[in-house]
Amino acid sequence: MLAAPNPHPRLVILGGGFAGLAAARALRKAPIEITLVDRRNHHLFQPLLYQVATAALNPADIAYPIRSVLRKQRNVRTILARAERIEVGAKRVVLVDGVVEYDYLIVATGATHSYFGRDEWEPWAPGLKTVEDALEVRRRVLSAFEAAEREPDRQRVRELLTFVVVGGGPTGVELAGALSEIGRLTVAKDFRTFDPRSVRVVLVEGAERVLPVYPVELSEKARRQLERLGVQVLTSARVTEIDANGVRLGEERIHARTVLWAAGVAASPLAKSLSVPLDRAGRVLVEPDLSLPGHPEVFVVGDLMSLACEGKPVPGVAPAALQAGRAAAANVQRLMQGQRAQAFRYRDKGSLATIGRAAAVAQLGGWRFSGFFAWWLWWVVHIAYLIGFRNRLVVMMGWAWQYFAFSRGARLITGRAWQPSAAAPKGAEPAKSAPQEALR
Amino acid sequence: MLAAPNPHPRLVILGGGFAGLAAARALRKAPIEITLVDRRNHHLFQPLLYQVATAALNPADIAYPIRSVLRKQRNVRTILARAERIEVGAKRVVLVDGVVEYDYLIVATGATHSYFGRDEWEPWAPGLKTVEDALEVRRRVLSAFEAAEREPDRQRVRELLTFVVVGGGPTGVELAGALSEIGRLTVAKDFRTFDPRSVRVVLVEGAERVLPVYPVELSEKARRQLERLGVQVLTSARVTEIDANGVRLGEERIHARTVLWAAGVAASPLAKSLSVPLDRAGRVLVEPDLSLPGHPEVFVVGDLMSLACEGKPVPGVAPAALQAGRAAAANVQRLMQGQRAQAFRYRDKGSLATIGRAAAVAQLGGWRFSGFFAWWLWWVVHIAYLIGFRNRLVVMMGWAWQYFAFSRGARLITGRAWQPSAAAPKGAEPAKSAPQEALR
Repeated sequence: MLAAPNPHPRLVILGGGFAGLAAARALRKAPIEITLVDRRNHHLFQPLLYQVATAALNPADIAYPIRSVLRKQRNVRTILARAERIEVGAKRVVLVDGVVEYDYLIVATGATHSYFGRDEWEPWAPGLKTVEDALEVRRRVLSAFEAAEREPDRQRVRELLTFVVVGGGPTGVELAGALSEIGRLTVAKDFRTFDPRSVRVVLVEGAERVLPVYPVELSEKARRQLERLGVQVLTSARVTEIDANGVRLGEERIHARTVLWAAGVAASPLAKSLSVPLDRAGRVLVEPDLSLPGHPEVFVVGDLMSLACEGKPVPGVAPAALQAGRAAAANVQRLMQGQRAQAFRYRDKGSLATIGRAAAVAQLGGWRFSGFFAWWLWWVVHIAYLIGFRNRLVVMMGWAWQYFAFSRGARLITGRAWQPSAAAPKGAEPAKSAPQEALR
Repeated sequence: MLAAPNPHPRLVILGGGFAGLAAARALRKAPIEITLVDRRNHHLFQPLLYQVATAALNPADIAYPIRSVLRKQRNVRTILARAERIEVGAKRVVLVDGVVEYDYLIVATGATHSYFGRDEWEPWAPGLKTVEDALEVRRRVLSAFEAAEREPDRQRVRELLTFVVVGGGPTGVELAGALSEIGRLTVAKDFRTFDPRSVRVVLVEGAERVLPVYPVELSEKARRQLERLGVQVLTSARVTEIDANGVRLGEERIHARTVLWAAGVAASPLAKSLSVPLDRAGRVLVEPDLSLPGHPEVFVVGDLMSLACEGKPVPGVAPAALQAGRAAAANVQRLMQGQRAQAFRYRDKGSLATIGRAAAVAQLGGWRFSGFFAWWLWWVVHIAYLIGFRNRLVVMMGWAWQYFAFSRGARLITGRAWQPSAAAPKGAEPAKSAPQEALR
């Protein structure tokens, strides 16, 4: 048992993402004993994860130990643990290796990517939610260039230099733009046997336009900026198959050794243990005050909550998570003081997506921008949100460097070897087509 | 076959470490076709690897793509591949996935750590030769602190906070000093249930003194500086057993969940395929001109070579590797011009070892230093050697930051979960003693 005798009520926060951290910090002066549980030791600035995947930043530039973020807040205890289930009746959370009891609970365990029931696609099309995901993507992309350098067969070189990004939301758009830049600018001088500018990046989106939740005008601008960077944008295109050789879109086949998944979101499986109705993506349908139906002492926030605010669904973005985390914290304080919880109101502060070097689209209130100014704005907003001064400084420097030198500093292939042609078509000559092993 | 028709002689360099890169760069103006083969895509600045292991630097700060280092040198082709064996008779190197022929060969594949025939110790005492090694050490050290935070049993907390470093050479001394500082300064405010200053670091060295290849006076100063940092230094102490519970030194037992290996070096196994006499550590006994006995067209340099120069063995350090790489390149040029190869002369430029914040020992020519000036010197020399301007700048900033803020910016637990108590003593209560899983 982790609970100790204490006169203060006990709040447990599950998850140290934007929502969980915001809740903990909002209660820094409250007479409450907070336990923050995360299965990782670091808070991750997910909006910049694609920069790690494309070798522009180091993992430590966008991740920061949760324990350090909360170092000075004496009413918080941080524990590194994996929560297995929530027992709302007994008011306790069962961990893999222990139990923690609560008076109030804030669940902020977020979401992961989903393959819409086609989990067999995962080995061929990794997603982008964790530091490990980003390093895996980086390894595959860089290994594909290395393999192309040694490949004598023209057709196979083309497959190695074709990158398909599935999903045209902000992450997919950012990934596709960055991949195209890597090929065209960054590694252009590093290779001898092929022209890196022959890199082909294909962005596949099921809806009619990229960035489907943005205004039509911005989607159109994003598409044009992507195409200027050399990205081939396919909209209203549904992926029907992914395997070692690439992607099938109905009748069409795109031969590619590297496919990246930026579509589909599934809520943390912890939601199932709450025994309440979930939406199609597995998110918890919360009350207007963010509480669990029938359990006013339990709040669900961030990407795990499903809520409509003034008729519009609250989106799964960082600003919404920050706002919901703070709102849940305020409601906990109201309950502690015998008051009633208040309904959450989401304030849409706008949307931003970056596309490449000095290209982005933005919508802020009634204003819409694209091009260099939007890119600069995106940059300022993201740096401002980054937790930890050192990280802000390092990220800023890394970007300035990358911008002026067209260079990417984190181009390491690490970890276990990824073999893009391990499942090459039968009949291929193994001695030539097998990619080199990147590692010991 | 990777060889293409070319009027120039073909030089193959195996290994992109200090020796291999120095050889390639020395031949940048020579009329020769160079192929550099490495099984990794990056050159690693090994002297700073312990800084990654102790969370001060990111991997990308001390590693740089070989391809980029040689970008402007048009007579070099870099390939990412693993060499399986060398066939000196046929003048070719057999790769896992191909063959490369040569007229001249420079073998610079270096060394790895050795457990003196006790390979079963490896899971309990990881070494420090690669980026992955360093991340594994970092994961174990940080996970031990996390597990200690949640452990109710006093004895087990003590075991979790005890770190044993086996081997008192430069790497061991640097690791031990940095570990002690992590506990005493860096994480001091991050934990709630134990006093991080109760961290115990034990350095075990088999010889009579630490840094046994340095002058006696410096060894003594290093020992005093280590002890001032709180490191317990055990000399003339031989490890007889390592397992999940710690280390045995003859009759004595040190209970520790984290043991790190900084002793023993074994040459790259590629040396065996050369069919020439090897020394006890598996290194190639080369001719005075660094060539292979009976094969004047093959040179062996860096940590893989075994050679005495003016009666003293050439040490396995970066300056010796750089010098030997350049000497072998010069001999290749002499042979190309019909001249005779010349004997290698090693110039000892001195020794440096850092111990902690503003503490180090140095020997330069007849001069010996310790304390702050030696530390500052160490810092300048290592930064100056770092390849790539960006890396120099980032490392310098990271250190300045760490020095002034007592902070370590790269404290991420990533990769697969390491479970320090997976093999805990029988009878332990699993629900409490099992460490939390750091990862999905």
